[in-house]
Amino acid sequence: MKLTVYLSGEIHTNWRQEIEEGVRKHGLDVVFTSAVTEHDASDAAGDHLGVETDSFWRDHKSSKINAIRIKTLIRSCDMAVIRFGDKYKQWNAAFDAGYCAALGKPYVTLHDDDIIHPLKEVDGAAMAWARTTDQVTEILRYTLS
Amino acid sequence: MKLTVYLSGEIHTNWRQEIEEGVRKHGLDVVFTSAVTEHDASDAAGDHLGVETDSFWRDHKSSKINAIRIKTLIRSCDMAVIRFGDKYKQWNAAFDAGYCAALGKPYVTLHDDDIIHPLKEVDGAAMAWARTTDQVTEILRYTLS
Amino acid sequence: MKLTVYLSGEIHTNWRQEIEEGVRKHGLDVVFTSAVTEHDASDAAGDHLGVETDSFWRDHKSSKINAIRIKTLIRSCDMAVIRFGDKYKQWNAAFDAGYCAALGKPYVTLHDDDIIHPLKEVDGAAMAWARTTDQVTEILRYTLS
Amino acid sequence: MKLTVYLSGEIHTNWRQEIEEGVRKHGLDVVFTSAVTEHDASDAAGDHLGVETDSFWRDHKSSKINAIRIKTLIRSCDMAVIRFGDKYKQWNAAFDAGYCAALGKPYVTLHDDDIIHPLKEVDGAAMAWARTTDQVTEILRYTLS
Amino acid sequence: MKLTVYLSGEIHTNWRQEIEEGVRKHGLDVVFTSAVTEHDASDAAGDHLGVETDSFWRDHKSSKINAIRIKTLIRSCDMAVIRFGDKYKQWNAAFDAGYCAALGKPYVTLHDDDIIHPLKEVDGAAMAWARTTDQVTEILRYTLS
Amino acid sequence: MKLTVYLSGEIHTNWRQEIEEGVRKHGLDVVFTSAVTEHDASDAAGDHLGVETDSFWRDHKSSKINAIRIKTLIRSCDMAVIRFGDKYKQWNAAFDAGYCAALGKPYVTLHDDDIIHPLKEVDGAAMAWARTTDQVTEILRYTLS
Amino acid sequence: MKLTVYLSGEIHTNWRQEIEEGVRKHGLDVVFTSAVTEHDASDAAGDHLGVETDSFWRDHKSSKINAIRIKTLIRSCDMAVIRFGDKYKQWNAAFDAGYCAALGKPYVTLHDDDIIHPLKEVDGAAMAWARTTDQVTEILRYTLS
Amino acid sequence: MKLTVYLSGEIHTNWRQEIEEGVRKHGLDVVFTSAVTEHDASDAAGDHLGVETDSFWRDHKSSKINAIRIKTLIRSCDMAVIRFGDKYKQWNAAFDAGYCAALGKPYVTLHDDDIIHPLKEVDGAAMAWARTTDQVTEILRYTLS
Repeated sequence: MKLTVYLSGEIHTNWRQEIEEGVRKHGLDVVFTSAVTEHDASDAAGDHLGVETDSFWRDHKSSKINAIRIKTLIRSCDMAVIRFGDKYKQWNAAFDAGYCAALGKPYVTLHDDDIIHPLKEVDGAAMAWARTTDQVTEILRYTLS
Repeated sequence: MKLTVYLSGEIHTNWRQEIEEGVRKHGLDVVFTSAVTEHDASDAAGDHLGVETDSFWRDHKSSKINAIRIKTLIRSCDMAVIRFGDKYKQWNAAFDAGYCAALGKPYVTLHDDDIIHPLKEVDGAAMAWARTTDQVTEILRYTLS
Repeated sequence: MKLTVYLSGEIHTNWRQEIEEGVRKHGLDVVFTSAVTEHDASDAAGDHLGVETDSFWRDHKSSKINAIRIKTLIRSCDMAVIRFGDKYKQWNAAFDAGYCAALGKPYVTLHDDDIIHPLKEVDGAAMAWARTTDQVTEILRYTLS
Repeated sequence: MKLTVYLSGEIHTNWRQEIEEGVRKHGLDVVFTSAVTEHDASDAAGDHLGVETDSFWRDHKSSKINAIRIKTLIRSCDMAVIRFGDKYKQWNAAFDAGYCAALGKPYVTLHDDDIIHPLKEVDGAAMAWARTTDQVTEILRYTLS
Repeated sequence: MKLTVYLSGEIHTNWRQEIEEGVRKHGLDVVFTSAVTEHDASDAAGDHLGVETDSFWRDHKSSKINAIRIKTLIRSCDMAVIRFGDKYKQWNAAFDAGYCAALGKPYVTLHDDDIIHPLKEVDGAAMAWARTTDQVTEILRYTLS
Repeated sequence: MKLTVYLSGEIHTNWRQEIEEGVRKHGLDVVFTSAVTEHDASDAAGDHLGVETDSFWRDHKSSKINAIRIKTLIRSCDMAVIRFGDKYKQWNAAFDAGYCAALGKPYVTLHDDDIIHPLKEVDGAAMAWARTTDQVTEILRYTLS
Repeated sequence: MKLTVYLSGEIHTNWRQEIEEGVRKHGLDVVFTSAVTEHDASDAAGDHLGVETDSFWRDHKSSKINAIRIKTLIRSCDMAVIRFGDKYKQWNAAFDAGYCAALGKPYVTLHDDDIIHPLKEVDGAAMAWARTTDQVTEILRYTLS
Repeated sequence: MKLTVYLSGEIHTNWRQEIEEGVRKHGLDVVFTSAVTEHDASDAAGDHLGVETDSFWRDHKSSKINAIRIKTLIRSCDMAVIRFGDKYKQWNAAFDAGYCAALGKPYVTLHDDDIIHPLKEVDGAAMAWARTTDQVTEILRYTLS
């Protein structure tokens, strides 16, 4: 068995690296996928198509270019990990969770105790809630055992 | 032509009532649906199934009870309006947007200019972004014209 | 809002009647559907197509005739209630739960505490677990509120 | 031609090994998949996410962790074998059968004569009923011939 | 409960009328649908679009015009009855059966004993095999009981 | 039997009225649906959401507002008529045809002989090609006979 | 590009071999799949599951065992060739054609001129009608060019 | 990550080669697919099935043979590029765009400024509009980064 796992959410901490490292240690057959996680590159994804004076349209173009990758990867993943940190709105992460839920893609969430309440709908459709990246790694290890 | 419109998001202002009133004025054939929008009732939706000492499980039970209604209504709507206000995390609204996107349900967003950037992925999959409830009403009026 | 609710499982107690009565008291807009719940009629559903000497084929013919109704009703319901009593194998109820899960139909289970463990997979995919028919009625009342 | 076969059900006898051995003897191109079949590990699948005092929630967490694997494997299999032994409730096996049926995944059942009647709905949607693991192996051999 | 039943196959005997009459006697809530069953009209369905000298294209045009109706009715039916008589090739009836099977629409077959063997694949995917129109009526009566 | 028919394409001639009149004469049970067919209103559909200086974005906003209606109506129609006239690019009509084809919605085309060749892919997936509105009416009459 | 082509129908002539040979000559990247085409083996596919005195059930068991293979192969093919010869009822071939049509799998038919009329519905949903195996080979060669 | 990209539209300029070259320079893991792009071969795709005197049927046969390839490739691509040049009707390109849209396949358009208005519906459902092949290459490079 082999898993393709889409990692969605927070891009300012190294939770992706921690999970990938944990998986490597266990020698698990996991392929990780993600949106482009470099903030500036992601915001500028549509700039080469022409300059926009209106920031709405600049964002619009970039978010759609990013969506090509995100949509393709979510549709082809086996499961997802949705990470919520303690900063920013992170509506894209919740959007990805809803997208997974509607497609029947199993996902687990990764977040601290203090945001349990606002995440209750996102957690309600999840297969598990993890507090640490080690717990996520353990879920992957068990699933592949 | 007749539309069933799911209204998702903010529950602390009267945007739902404004759209409903606008629609009534124009005499449009629209049925509006929503999650239970009374905050306390929504949080307590699962309480009658037994008391939970752990707040995570209390939230979990309630969010799943709420999901019966939400899932059913989103799947049977023609389109949705997703509202983001200036308070709270509102991850459930972004979750609903992702759910709609994956099902191919058209939706429009309703929010102010100052949250354009964090909502770029949600707006990127939307059919329109409205700033005011009058604009939403006008979209419905036009669609039904 | 109106709900079509498929009632699956135990046919030897009056749990269906209790829920229907509860719903009537609250004046809720619910249509209940079920398989044929008369045991003998259900077992004999295929007998008019010709006598079978082998009990496997008699069962086979009857279960398929019953499946026409069950399949049609599950596919057209909004949600299901899956009831497990304290007698018999009740594999058909668990089968219906799996069928609902795969179709994305929300369901709630109704059973006592002493069978929590063997039902953990069925409960794991459910939107709620109720111990009493009053609790089921309350879920319906809330969902339709 | 190559087959991916999901083996569901009984974990206390060696029926899986018998089928796998039969397939090996015939040199068939079959990949077998299964849920985690070690009972204690399966029950404890969610324990690393935090201790639960309520046995319902312990079971709930574990069954959902297990469901990540089960759901993924059923969705990617070509066919399933659903085994019912003579012990325990085995509702998870019937649940898997219903899940397969709704997805249009062909499955065969493997069980003794004495539970024909309670399994009639599960057998009614099956492609075959086998009494012995040799018969299952023969079905695989023929299908791959 | 109400059923929409698509009647496919033989157009030279009055099996449709017999079933409809049986259903009327029992006062069942059934809507019957069918392809156009007048042979000459059916063969000429595309003639008004221009004369064809090549009989293949005449048939082609007519069969596609007929398919608009057939496809629409099969997709919206709850179940189908597929009738095979003792004359003609009747490949369209077998085609409809395959179409139903792939869509998960339950169907029953209606035919005599002497064509059991050539119909084994069609019967294999059916929910029942009936020899008489009374048996079909009884299936409908039971399903709606 | 009743049909919901989506009329797509040319808005500068009265082909829609001719078909509707033909249907009325025959007393057929047909509901016709269409995009907004007033050219200026359609181009301005998004103007109330804010003025755009860039014509691409003006068009973009309007086409998406129009798509809410078009998408909803195509998804809920039984069949479509796709009309190509002798003016303009009419790529939206070909787009609608492709959309119908992918969804399995049957459609017929309505166009003159001189554009057979460039329309061969659109006609190739159609159920019929009509040259006149009378022929379309006759298809509807036959389908509902 | 590479094609997986399901070959359905007639098993008493060597049309399969002719197409395979033609494809080999052209060096095309095609994988051919088929039901078990040995008549006696196919009829006896279920015999090892127990002797049936009633020929209907013998056929039933065998046809379902065969369906495991057929269903799996049709669902995984890119296109199908459906062959009708001049003998036997061949309802299984028409059934496969309907199954392909409902799944949106493109198929071509292969048959002589004298059965054009009874095959008009099957041909109506086909992508092409070929009279010779060379024509089928040419379609594959062109498609892979 | 690896992408399969379907290239649809204009066959009289070398835009396909330019994108392929750009992708090669960047060393990207992209597989490009297309319809048969040789005009005469495409128009004659069905000729070997028999001569047609009526040009409509010649086109019909060829377009369906071509559709086997197109349908298969669109269904298996990750994304598409839809190119509109300055000549010809190019309805097949718009048809492909609609087909992609209905299947949820992301696509980008490639065309000049002067046809923005007639392409507004096609662009409205696209993930991006590019004016040059370099811009398309850049989208692919970014998506695979």
